[in-house]
Amino acid sequence: MASMATFIAQTPYPHHSFPKKLHTHFAPTLRLSLRPVSTPKTRQRLRISSALIEPDGGKLVELFVPESEKAEKKRDAATLPRIKLSRIDLEWVHVISEGWSSPLTGFMRESEFLQTLHFNSLRLDDGSFVNMSVPIVLAIDDAQKRQIGESTRVALVDSDNNLIAILNDIEIYKHHKEERIARTWGTTAPGLPYVDEAITNAGNWLIGGDLEVMEPIKYNDGLDRFRLSPTELRDEFTKRNADAVFAFQLRNPVHNGHALLMTDTRRRLLEMGYKNPILLLHPLGGYTKADDVPLTWRMKQHEKVLEDGVLDPETTVVSIFPSPMHYAGPTEVQWHAKARINAGANFYIVGRDPAGMGHPIEKRDLYDADHGKKVLSMAPGLERLNILPFKVAAYDKTQGKMAFFEPSRAQDFIFISGTKMRTLARNKENPPEGFMCPGGWKVLVDYYDSLVPADSGKVPEAVPA
Amino acid sequence: MASMATFIAQTPYPHHSFPKKLHTHFAPTLRLSLRPVSTPKTRQRLRISSALIEPDGGKLVELFVPESEKAEKKRDAATLPRIKLSRIDLEWVHVISEGWSSPLTGFMRESEFLQTLHFNSLRLDDGSFVNMSVPIVLAIDDAQKRQIGESTRVALVDSDNNLIAILNDIEIYKHHKEERIARTWGTTAPGLPYVDEAITNAGNWLIGGDLEVMEPIKYNDGLDRFRLSPTELRDEFTKRNADAVFAFQLRNPVHNGHALLMTDTRRRLLEMGYKNPILLLHPLGGYTKADDVPLTWRMKQHEKVLEDGVLDPETTVVSIFPSPMHYAGPTEVQWHAKARINAGANFYIVGRDPAGMGHPIEKRDLYDADHGKKVLSMAPGLERLNILPFKVAAYDKTQGKMAFFEPSRAQDFIFISGTKMRTLARNKENPPEGFMCPGGWKVLVDYYDSLVPADSGKVPEAVPA
Repeated sequence: MASMATFIAQTPYPHHSFPKKLHTHFAPTLRLSLRPVSTPKTRQRLRISSALIEPDGGKLVELFVPESEKAEKKRDAATLPRIKLSRIDLEWVHVISEGWSSPLTGFMRESEFLQTLHFNSLRLDDGSFVNMSVPIVLAIDDAQKRQIGESTRVALVDSDNNLIAILNDIEIYKHHKEERIARTWGTTAPGLPYVDEAITNAGNWLIGGDLEVMEPIKYNDGLDRFRLSPTELRDEFTKRNADAVFAFQLRNPVHNGHALLMTDTRRRLLEMGYKNPILLLHPLGGYTKADDVPLTWRMKQHEKVLEDGVLDPETTVVSIFPSPMHYAGPTEVQWHAKARINAGANFYIVGRDPAGMGHPIEKRDLYDADHGKKVLSMAPGLERLNILPFKVAAYDKTQGKMAFFEPSRAQDFIFISGTKMRTLARNKENPPEGFMCPGGWKVLVDYYDSLVPADSGKVPEAVPA
Repeated sequence: MASMATFIAQTPYPHHSFPKKLHTHFAPTLRLSLRPVSTPKTRQRLRISSALIEPDGGKLVELFVPESEKAEKKRDAATLPRIKLSRIDLEWVHVISEGWSSPLTGFMRESEFLQTLHFNSLRLDDGSFVNMSVPIVLAIDDAQKRQIGESTRVALVDSDNNLIAILNDIEIYKHHKEERIARTWGTTAPGLPYVDEAITNAGNWLIGGDLEVMEPIKYNDGLDRFRLSPTELRDEFTKRNADAVFAFQLRNPVHNGHALLMTDTRRRLLEMGYKNPILLLHPLGGYTKADDVPLTWRMKQHEKVLEDGVLDPETTVVSIFPSPMHYAGPTEVQWHAKARINAGANFYIVGRDPAGMGHPIEKRDLYDADHGKKVLSMAPGLERLNILPFKVAAYDKTQGKMAFFEPSRAQDFIFISGTKMRTLARNKENPPEGFMCPGGWKVLVDYYDSLVPADSGKVPEAVPA
């Protein structure tokens, strides 16, 4: 399990390391967005005209049915075989439809699936590669396959049978589950959360095709306003006149070690000559395992961190990344980075053991803690992204705050592990002052408080850092 | 298990399919080799000057110590920590030293290992990719690691402690076995032959570095004369004035279905305008699983096939490919193809389920039979190679010979499975006339005859096609 330690730029990596030759993908001119942020809109495959880093494939994919065609599509869909989407399927429709996975235009067909599994990248028509490391696929079972028969299209519906999308020009192919799992996770051990949730009991077939999505996906959980699409984020960065965007992916509460890292990264970007680096603080909002802190609690905690002034709201955009979590370490971190290119980020902060977890059946981490940043720096299709590896931060007793670890005075530092933090929050004890802003800590304590069931003392194991 | 059926060019694939625009990497001028074929020579990283397809990385790697430096290297090596090589390790030294894995210059360091596992390709300094799908690594255990200590070089010795090579500028890193297996084979099921033989009991560390090899690797088994290096093969193709080289990888006896396929491929290449296509009939000579027909018997069988005139010796080069076998299906077939580029082949014939086998614990094939040719056609770094997928051949009862299967008269064909062929040969029965040349069949019968042990009726399961 990754400890709470955080890291910053340290080792040079083969083809894109930090610091790098100073050039920018931005023209630092003010481009005000004419569209309000976070208002659902009907769009279809717009070419984004901004000076931010180009999306993969050159244009941001957006797959929404234009208002004028909706009635017809609905009538149309009523005649098609139906596939009911799970929550995770719906999250993937969300991801694909807004262009996080550009240039994908739908659930993967076999050619894309195989390239993803074997090469973590897709070859475009011009011979260039874009990164694509996790399969984005839709499983169906034998009965559904029979029901689809010779149809070339299917309707995708939610659990209440509301029409979500039409999948066109479909291709059905075998769902080789064991191989998919082995090549994606580097293990087939039982107990991988995403596998248990979305693969083991899924159908033996995969169905790929091109998506036409009726409406932007909403969850009505009070957090939709934070779910900015790549287009909306790009508009926001442009409005703020960003000349660098650095993304921080997280699925855990923010402590002051993280904050130090983000603040320090901005300082370094300014030193490199950027005038207005903007932080994209980008918590993952899709499926997470049961012992992670749920999105609603994490968002409350992040809000406190901004309220308490630990991060500067002027230079920070907090938004939710709609992807489900694979916990697939070096394979998944590529997806996390690639999706942020599509959202306009040209710097990506990568920590120790990104997207890692404990081995489900052995007493060790599933992945080598250094592989994530190494693989990320080598990955085909991510050449344009500047990778920012961490250096270790820990609690400095002499200063009473989180600071970058100095091996020469190791005795001055405390590493507060995830287990330690969890135990403190659960017992309503306080961490050393300066570890996390008080407002943020209170949210965590409240979360664990809310968990204690009436009839048992058992609390799910959470791994907050 | 792949049946004995064989296949030829059928489906078009994304970026290099057959037939293709007619262009050639050859200047069809006669270039006589000044060096005799298959005589051991001392060479070091020669630039091959021929008009054959360029080796990966632009030049063929050769890693032999020049005669003039041998004495010094030997003295030098005597002072270094020693690593004893297994038979498979030695086969890899053979492979690397002759440039089959160009541009690799030694056992993989971690960067190459990770790129191989995650991307099946290596990025070169100029940003281009070469294919590299199987890890070529050397494992050491804790004691060996301790013994190496701070040394930057080690001596590699054979089982009799003869000096084989020096490994320079070494890097030692963790051997994450489970992850290596999962990402290479797409399964971690127990019973994978190469895993049992070379990984499970291997050390927990890998050691990479640059090789300097004392002498070309020889096995003194009477077959060394067939072990032509990539340089020697290129010389031979040039001497024969080849304007196309098509490679056929095999690890099983050749039957008339294979022969039909090879003959037909040559005919098609002639139709495309090539004047002198040469077949590289290239049996794999390294480690194979216990139930495969051993190399010596296969070579006897191949000789008979040529003697009996089934294949034309004028346009066929029979040589041994020194690589060990992984049985890793779509991952391994890329290695098989890539290595042949380095040997000068610009066409590669790929069959059903290449490098496949039965799942070790489930009653099914380990790989989807079509994935091999699909993955091969998509693989980064193989763009220059023309992939020739098979179409099915089977025994045509109306003609009394192997012929391309015609679904419209399916009832006229017999598919002779590997199991059927094995049973026939073991029982000294004959297959239908025209299935295999009589001389070749006799070799097979003799092989099974030689196996029957005095004290038991048990015969290893062989899978001859």
